Amino acid sequence: MGEEKKAGISRRLLLTGAGAGGAGLAVGALAAAAFGGQLPEKQATDTIEFYGEHQAGITTEAQDRMHIVGFDVTTQDRGKLVALLRDWTAAIEQMAAGQPVGGADTGSYDAPPADTGEAEGLGAAHLTVTVGFGRSLFLDEHGKPRFGLQGKLPEALIELPHFSGDMVEEQRSGGDIVVQACANDPQVAVHAIRNLSRLGFGTVRVRFSQIGFGRTAKTTQAQQTPRNLFGFKDGTANILAEDADALAKHVWVGKDSTDQPWMAGGTYMVARRIRMQIETWDRSALREQENVVGRIKSTGAPLSGGEEFSEPDFAMAGSAGPIIPVDSHVAVLHPSAHNGVQMLRRGFNYTDGSDGLGRLDAGLFFIAFVIDARTHFVPLQKAMSANDAMNEYLRHTSSGLYAIPPGIQPGQYLGQQLFES
Amino acid sequence: MGEEKKAGISRRLLLTGAGAGGAGLAVGALAAAAFGGQLPEKQATDTIEFYGEHQAGITTEAQDRMHIVGFDVTTQDRGKLVALLRDWTAAIEQMAAGQPVGGADTGSYDAPPADTGEAEGLGAAHLTVTVGFGRSLFLDEHGKPRFGLQGKLPEALIELPHFSGDMVEEQRSGGDIVVQACANDPQVAVHAIRNLSRLGFGTVRVRFSQIGFGRTAKTTQAQQTPRNLFGFKDGTANILAEDADALAKHVWVGKDSTDQPWMAGGTYMVARRIRMQIETWDRSALREQENVVGRIKSTGAPLSGGEEFSEPDFAMAGSAGPIIPVDSHVAVLHPSAHNGVQMLRRGFNYTDGSDGLGRLDAGLFFIAFVIDARTHFVPLQKAMSANDAMNEYLRHTSSGLYAIPPGIQPGQYLGQQLFES
Repeated sequence: MGEEKKAGISRRLLLTGAGAGGAGLAVGALAAAAFGGQLPEKQATDTIEFYGEHQAGITTEAQDRMHIVGFDVTTQDRGKLVALLRDWTAAIEQMAAGQPVGGADTGSYDAPPADTGEAEGLGAAHLTVTVGFGRSLFLDEHGKPRFGLQGKLPEALIELPHFSGDMVEEQRSGGDIVVQACANDPQVAVHAIRNLSRLGFGTVRVRFSQIGFGRTAKTTQAQQTPRNLFGFKDGTANILAEDADALAKHVWVGKDSTDQPWMAGGTYMVARRIRMQIETWDRSALREQENVVGRIKSTGAPLSGGEEFSEPDFAMAGSAGPIIPVDSHVAVLHPSAHNGVQMLRRGFNYTDGSDGLGRLDAGLFFIAFVIDARTHFVPLQKAMSANDAMNEYLRHTSSGLYAIPPGIQPGQYLGQQLFES
Repeated sequence: MGEEKKAGISRRLLLTGAGAGGAGLAVGALAAAAFGGQLPEKQATDTIEFYGEHQAGITTEAQDRMHIVGFDVTTQDRGKLVALLRDWTAAIEQMAAGQPVGGADTGSYDAPPADTGEAEGLGAAHLTVTVGFGRSLFLDEHGKPRFGLQGKLPEALIELPHFSGDMVEEQRSGGDIVVQACANDPQVAVHAIRNLSRLGFGTVRVRFSQIGFGRTAKTTQAQQTPRNLFGFKDGTANILAEDADALAKHVWVGKDSTDQPWMAGGTYMVARRIRMQIETWDRSALREQENVVGRIKSTGAPLSGGEEFSEPDFAMAGSAGPIIPVDSHVAVLHPSAHNGVQMLRRGFNYTDGSDGLGRLDAGLFFIAFVIDARTHFVPLQKAMSANDAMNEYLRHTSSGLYAIPPGIQPGQYLGQQLFES
């Protein structure tokens, strides 16, 4: 063991020698030592608070990158599931603070490291991790309760219906638990999912996994409206983080708006992988593209005029009917056509290789947070699948609805409201 | 047409009204107009020079994101292929300057826009696009010359052999033409590939497409060594952009080092998609991981001591043989074991969903530029596949070798040295 141990010892000295400055400093100092003192300055200021009334990653200003995973729970043991949620909570808290999983504990040289290591030195990069539960966590395929959760299934956690034109792939859809990791560095988001997946070994297995990039909606007043892969500004009329009234009305589940008290302060996530037929789109005329969207491509203004944030005038006459076509995306989905309902959209673009037919597999990984999918998503998606001219260019390849429990305080674990209510 | 035309006109006024300031200003002014005057400041300074002795994207400081595509040429018409290379050259020049494809030409309202639009406002983000040719561009499956390229196939553009343990998928490998787009914004890289793919409609088709993130090698003196998905610093001993001697010796094809004068100033790209068995890796002890790599995980120093850039001491004794195990990655691939040959590594991490067995499909998209794969890659890969302890954790799922022609001057097109020599 002589020399080999020496290498181990010098490593250990390096890692622990800097830890004498106190627990509060230990992690940063340790990281600084591990990286030759070149600790990135951003590490201290690039964190998003993990604890709170609501989970992070919903009204958080949308980061640039996403890794979302659906897990199936493979154990029947409620205790094991709760233990995993506790482990995940601890790990998420650490990663959201820019620390490695396991924190300052460097572990044993003869054991796997507590953290996989690839995000060391990258900071927190605004990491948020958001956890939700699918309907299948509550009921098995025979409709029998799982994990002692009888009576806990919210009425709003429906099975999403099949929509006209859906080409949903089951293995990309659903799942007992969803975990959305967002960060401004993809390696940080991937690191988070990977380490949670690793903690879940023997308890959960990955059902689907999706990487996204580029926001597809404006999420705060400060954020500029991004462009989707159709080249159009997207999410111009999104609910912004600052709009407390709209959030209360359309996003956060209140004590009085649910049959399940444990969901108060939570929300529902709709996730749909929407492949864009970009080759077809790219060969369509600018006129066609703008008529499909109902907006000017360059500015994002409605076809009825004004600028990006001008209200569309659906009554303004064009040459053959309204200047904003009735089957345009903006006309079909505008709140005025749906009793004023709005979604908090927070999706990402994706590109997943090629499809074997010489085309890129690319599109939108749609994510929206709503108070109730029955009122805030299903009617809109039905209208879209029936009437929206954009359908010609879209193919929905996955579908998922998840109950996102409320946020937690230090000492609690994610989902505690459900399991201990 | 009345009101509908009005929308078209106001759009057009907006776009062209600002163009009066002269051709040199037109694009920026136009973009500023299209984005309400909020042109990102970075746009002017985030470009990488497209023209030069060598193509960009080889010694360019590695960007954070990559989209690489292999195309097959579907036409038999040499003229059509050359026309595409001319179109691509013009488009790459524009995109590398942060301009849309087609430049200031906004095109007709009744035609598809020249640019797909999703990168507007994102700047150039250090975009580089690097084009190369596979062996199959020169010879068809019966060994007959294509496109009149008889006598032009470099001896060094071999068919890469099968290496022990390879699990290469043909549809991810090879291809007549490779296009590597790198940028600091994934949407910019994806936009580049998409628009080139679109220009190639009817001439080429996508064979494979791969997204990568996070560099996997230090490429300049200024750049810190990144970490791969094993959590280790990777590419510590890489050839750096500043090392002209090493580049001349190991990367750039010289007039005297090739049978094909058109390749002078070019290089060869080896591309291999290497899936990492990260679940297995993550369950192995730190001791095992460090012995496999031959380096300390935290610092990147060789197990023989020192710091990251210390030379490994392969003679230093450990408890059972050398302290740096003879089957460690660093020992098997060190230049001292291979007549001093070095590669310019420039790969990226990838995560491509899950594998249907509950595991993440993630790893390294290995890219290396070498003067000759016969001396600078094949022997190393043979040694690795035979002796490297890391193999247990790797699965090579694609393989490609491409001749990267030299850079060009304004007025030339990419590959002109080949087609007009």
